[in-house]
Amino acid sequence: MIRVGVIGYGYWGPVVARNFQTADGCQLAAVCDNSPAALERALKTYPGIQAARDPMEIVRSPQIDAVAVITPVWTHFEFAKAALENGKHVFVEKPFTSTAAQAEELIELAAARNLRIMVDHTFLFTGAVQKIRQLVDEDVLGRLYYYDSSRVNLGLFQHDVNVVWDLAPHDLAIMDYLLGAEPQAVAATGQSHLNGLEDMAYITVYFKDRMLAHINVNWLSPVKVRTTLIGGEKKMVVWNDLEADEKVKVYDKGVKITNGQGVYDLLVSYRSGDMWAPRVEQSEALKAEAKYFVECIEKNQTPFNDGHAGLRVVRILEAACQSLKQRGAPVELNGRVEPQMAVAAAGGAR
Amino acid sequence: MIRVGVIGYGYWGPVVARNFQTADGCQLAAVCDNSPAALERALKTYPGIQAARDPMEIVRSPQIDAVAVITPVWTHFEFAKAALENGKHVFVEKPFTSTAAQAEELIELAAARNLRIMVDHTFLFTGAVQKIRQLVDEDVLGRLYYYDSSRVNLGLFQHDVNVVWDLAPHDLAIMDYLLGAEPQAVAATGQSHLNGLEDMAYITVYFKDRMLAHINVNWLSPVKVRTTLIGGEKKMVVWNDLEADEKVKVYDKGVKITNGQGVYDLLVSYRSGDMWAPRVEQSEALKAEAKYFVECIEKNQTPFNDGHAGLRVVRILEAACQSLKQRGAPVELNGRVEPQMAVAAAGGAR
Amino acid sequence: MIRVGVIGYGYWGPVVARNFQTADGCQLAAVCDNSPAALERALKTYPGIQAARDPMEIVRSPQIDAVAVITPVWTHFEFAKAALENGKHVFVEKPFTSTAAQAEELIELAAARNLRIMVDHTFLFTGAVQKIRQLVDEDVLGRLYYYDSSRVNLGLFQHDVNVVWDLAPHDLAIMDYLLGAEPQAVAATGQSHLNGLEDMAYITVYFKDRMLAHINVNWLSPVKVRTTLIGGEKKMVVWNDLEADEKVKVYDKGVKITNGQGVYDLLVSYRSGDMWAPRVEQSEALKAEAKYFVECIEKNQTPFNDGHAGLRVVRILEAACQSLKQRGAPVELNGRVEPQMAVAAAGGAR
Amino acid sequence: MIRVGVIGYGYWGPVVARNFQTADGCQLAAVCDNSPAALERALKTYPGIQAARDPMEIVRSPQIDAVAVITPVWTHFEFAKAALENGKHVFVEKPFTSTAAQAEELIELAAARNLRIMVDHTFLFTGAVQKIRQLVDEDVLGRLYYYDSSRVNLGLFQHDVNVVWDLAPHDLAIMDYLLGAEPQAVAATGQSHLNGLEDMAYITVYFKDRMLAHINVNWLSPVKVRTTLIGGEKKMVVWNDLEADEKVKVYDKGVKITNGQGVYDLLVSYRSGDMWAPRVEQSEALKAEAKYFVECIEKNQTPFNDGHAGLRVVRILEAACQSLKQRGAPVELNGRVEPQMAVAAAGGAR
Repeated sequence: MIRVGVIGYGYWGPVVARNFQTADGCQLAAVCDNSPAALERALKTYPGIQAARDPMEIVRSPQIDAVAVITPVWTHFEFAKAALENGKHVFVEKPFTSTAAQAEELIELAAARNLRIMVDHTFLFTGAVQKIRQLVDEDVLGRLYYYDSSRVNLGLFQHDVNVVWDLAPHDLAIMDYLLGAEPQAVAATGQSHLNGLEDMAYITVYFKDRMLAHINVNWLSPVKVRTTLIGGEKKMVVWNDLEADEKVKVYDKGVKITNGQGVYDLLVSYRSGDMWAPRVEQSEALKAEAKYFVECIEKNQTPFNDGHAGLRVVRILEAACQSLKQRGAPVELNGRVEPQMAVAAAGGAR
Repeated sequence: MIRVGVIGYGYWGPVVARNFQTADGCQLAAVCDNSPAALERALKTYPGIQAARDPMEIVRSPQIDAVAVITPVWTHFEFAKAALENGKHVFVEKPFTSTAAQAEELIELAAARNLRIMVDHTFLFTGAVQKIRQLVDEDVLGRLYYYDSSRVNLGLFQHDVNVVWDLAPHDLAIMDYLLGAEPQAVAATGQSHLNGLEDMAYITVYFKDRMLAHINVNWLSPVKVRTTLIGGEKKMVVWNDLEADEKVKVYDKGVKITNGQGVYDLLVSYRSGDMWAPRVEQSEALKAEAKYFVECIEKNQTPFNDGHAGLRVVRILEAACQSLKQRGAPVELNGRVEPQMAVAAAGGAR
Repeated sequence: MIRVGVIGYGYWGPVVARNFQTADGCQLAAVCDNSPAALERALKTYPGIQAARDPMEIVRSPQIDAVAVITPVWTHFEFAKAALENGKHVFVEKPFTSTAAQAEELIELAAARNLRIMVDHTFLFTGAVQKIRQLVDEDVLGRLYYYDSSRVNLGLFQHDVNVVWDLAPHDLAIMDYLLGAEPQAVAATGQSHLNGLEDMAYITVYFKDRMLAHINVNWLSPVKVRTTLIGGEKKMVVWNDLEADEKVKVYDKGVKITNGQGVYDLLVSYRSGDMWAPRVEQSEALKAEAKYFVECIEKNQTPFNDGHAGLRVVRILEAACQSLKQRGAPVELNGRVEPQMAVAAAGGAR
Repeated sequence: MIRVGVIGYGYWGPVVARNFQTADGCQLAAVCDNSPAALERALKTYPGIQAARDPMEIVRSPQIDAVAVITPVWTHFEFAKAALENGKHVFVEKPFTSTAAQAEELIELAAARNLRIMVDHTFLFTGAVQKIRQLVDEDVLGRLYYYDSSRVNLGLFQHDVNVVWDLAPHDLAIMDYLLGAEPQAVAATGQSHLNGLEDMAYITVYFKDRMLAHINVNWLSPVKVRTTLIGGEKKMVVWNDLEADEKVKVYDKGVKITNGQGVYDLLVSYRSGDMWAPRVEQSEALKAEAKYFVECIEKNQTPFNDGHAGLRVVRILEAACQSLKQRGAPVELNGRVEPQMAVAAAGGAR
């Protein structure tokens, strides 16, 4: 029985707590939050648990096997490090850390102590992403041309991070999971209109073999959009996460170009066939993720959404913010990005 | 009575010819096409007109007052120049020319001879764009934050131009018309998957006062999208050109941020009010444009979609293609872009 | 402080219990269910409450002021009657009773003892219905032509009632609330394909002044539809309850016919103006309804969704089922429908 | 070469004329219309044809082999009869005739003279209907439960017919073609709000084996709807004719009920699988229909949309209007509709 302590009981913390409470093989043992009101709510729902205002109480408690860090990103490193140093497995809210260097340090620490790190890339556990991954794995789509995602709405403005650090981790984690490819370069454009932090951004990620990803995140859209297009040589996918049913549509459409004889003799042939919307599992993603976390601990197994997965996302976030400041100038990702502060103070972000 | 000769009778030429034939104050006098079959079709529909295979017959004919150039972009300069030199007004299919230098030469030539140039930015004459322009002019939207447009579908691949030169002129012309602002810099990313010319591209245009535009063009999308979001301080617009009715929706939504006392004391307030879809005129845009062309000639008046409008679009196209080759590196538009060949041969475009 | 006992803790009971627990001025005092597992769940969530398997314990308890009857329809009469006889106010799940005669008896009983009856027509408390009612009250729509509602999906088959008694009460209660008119006749068609009870039905309700309502309910639809059209002389409404935003759209559209001189000289003029989607309150309807129930008890005030409202719905249900058996033959509703069993056993329903 | 004369050159006549002009094996030989302006338009488009104001000129002309009657429904019988009597094949706009008796007379006349009658049920030649028919024929859908169609919009009011005769022929012809079953009874409700003719109606058609059809036609809807649901035991279809692509969607959804032991022991099992949108041919339906007309004449072959198909539709229209006047009282269709009172007056129906 894995005993989990949750640090951070604001918006997402209660959802994480509930799922660890109900998952087989684990139980919620403690909740920590700076706010007495939050602790009161937690205790009302889970009368028997430990409640603490100081995260160190949680990370040091011998009654706890794993710590879930569901706090603002700039605190992830401190709390996760303390937890690992005290022999706890960690489950960390996305984005993993504020810098790639922090992520690397946590990965090394966990490896040295044989502890698990899981980064909460929840979307990977949805039926939609699982189904698309299956289509990729079974080569239904063929060679991938592009991944194009929009995640826009009238947003909850964050005070400490820009829209890239707030929304893009979802898309980057999904992209990383589905494409399984190493990015070469990142170019990002965007603008800040209100509080000095970018509230809209467009991120292009270059891969080898001409594969391209583009991610559009925006806190200033009057309408909510959650749409991803994936273009493949054989088939193409449209995933609209706002659809109640038919979230994933697979199009038997494409273009084929063959060489003719002369300079302009490229022969283009279109293919426009059926569309197919596979049934997609609708159960709660975090429930599956919590179960998987417990399994990975019990079986001493590395999760696919481990610290390295978190690091890969953070590297692109860093590169994107670096490019943003240079109006789109591409930033190479040659194995290792120079670590730097990704989030500038409001005044300096302009 | 303005007598119009149409050069190019392929896909768009017949539509242009029909509208000039039916517009008051003008008539279709001649059609020119390299293909005998095209000429035969034209003569069947308009028995009395002059039919020519050589464009020079049209541009030199004393029976013709104005020439519509509806041919591939690389021929626009030659035909338009010849027409102007022979004292004809010109109506030129978008994009205006292959280079900014060509556009400038045509503008000077027309000015010297007091002739009209109209660039066929047809969308400016749609009810939707006219309505949005009215919302901007009447300050219904407030200060503009961004213009974000997607124009994607499984595309007609062009042999001579990439997707930027094929699709983006529509969006850039609309952007230019609605924003009325001078762009500062352009960053573009994209990729070519099939014939060596980019088949997908993302173009960011920076303006002063933090206004930003983003244009997404793609020939490899399984679904057709024609959506433009315009974010303003007071209201926001979603224009979905594929909707039969309710193409333009105005959202009374926004975010207001006021300064508090401390560093993190920005006070965010959301506004989420009614949505309103104004009735939009549904008549054929090209009909209104043809009528306007005749009026501008008769009244010796400069059209708003004149050569300068065409040049502004071409400059951004050039800059976008320059940035594309550098994976998004921004290209400054300081008054005048260095003229250069925008369209590379297939082999060299990568 | 109104102490509420909830009879029935299956699907809807827990939602009702939660809302009475959290509403100001009242508290959840007891839960009754035949199933020990249900009671266990209730006690886990509300540790201090009374739990009973016998409804009579609830209705007779001096610790309880009001009883919510959230059980199958055929039990409503028995439990509500017992509650009223024991001096409790009652909140009854829709449809109110199995027959009009039962409804009338409960109404008389409550009147005699000065107790409140509220029938749980939850939809009346949604922001959408409240907004449409406001449009009707303020004569924005003008004289109403029709009310046309579709409520179809792949349904939860009920064993004891057909689709009319299961789904149509929602629409009939909304229709009654919005139109405020007395129906004259009902014609219903439909069919049973699976278990002998009608699984699809079409109900037409005739009102005076040519106003017409039509309700389409179907358990065998592959797609979920929740759409209501309301046609008025001045404006028309489309309410799509499945839209996340913009649930209610008001169309400035209509037709006007004026008499000309000759037989065929009716002059038709169309009006097609703007569309407008007013902001609609999104808070939980049952929360407002629970609060209103408490207020009505405290202020000794008759709710608009009282026993008479419930009776009006039951009368149409009875008439619809009578018409169904005769393939649409109209059933007059002249003030009072003869009470009769509306729901036949499965074998006899055909 | 079949020479076709078209009587009626208003809205639909020119479309019919164009398709007969371009179809292989036939040519447009004459156009007749009461309006000189209409004839002028026809002559401008087809310079060589015969133009007549008197339909008798067309039906008697030895230069004509077949006559297309594209006039108001109350004139169909007269013109078609005259054409048949003069030895011409006839192509008649829907609905075939004003009464079943007229239809029967035309059928007999054509049979006696070995001439073809084709009723212009254009929708049967669309890719969507052809695809659905294929799904029915190949038993993909299984036993059919219902056909449910909505055809509503802000309509073109007709002076001579109500909305049932104007819009429902489309749906009834499609229903007849897809279901291939003989209707048993018709019940229709509706109302007239403006010019004394019904502007909204709901038609239920009963078939044997519990199959049911429902058709909703309305000239007073603010939004345009063209949606048909077809429920089958194995699969269900949604055909949305307003979708640009994906008009036909096939749902692998259903309900299965098996008998248990006790009275309420029906075991319900749901099936919710993939959705599939087969590619649907997009070419012009009338073009295929014109070609088929020519083939049927040349091969002396009876079209599936012959006079009998037209008669079946007219019989339901007659029955529906009879039922409409009695507020939904069902009208039996026992092989041949005797005009009769199907059900007693409303008062006696109980």
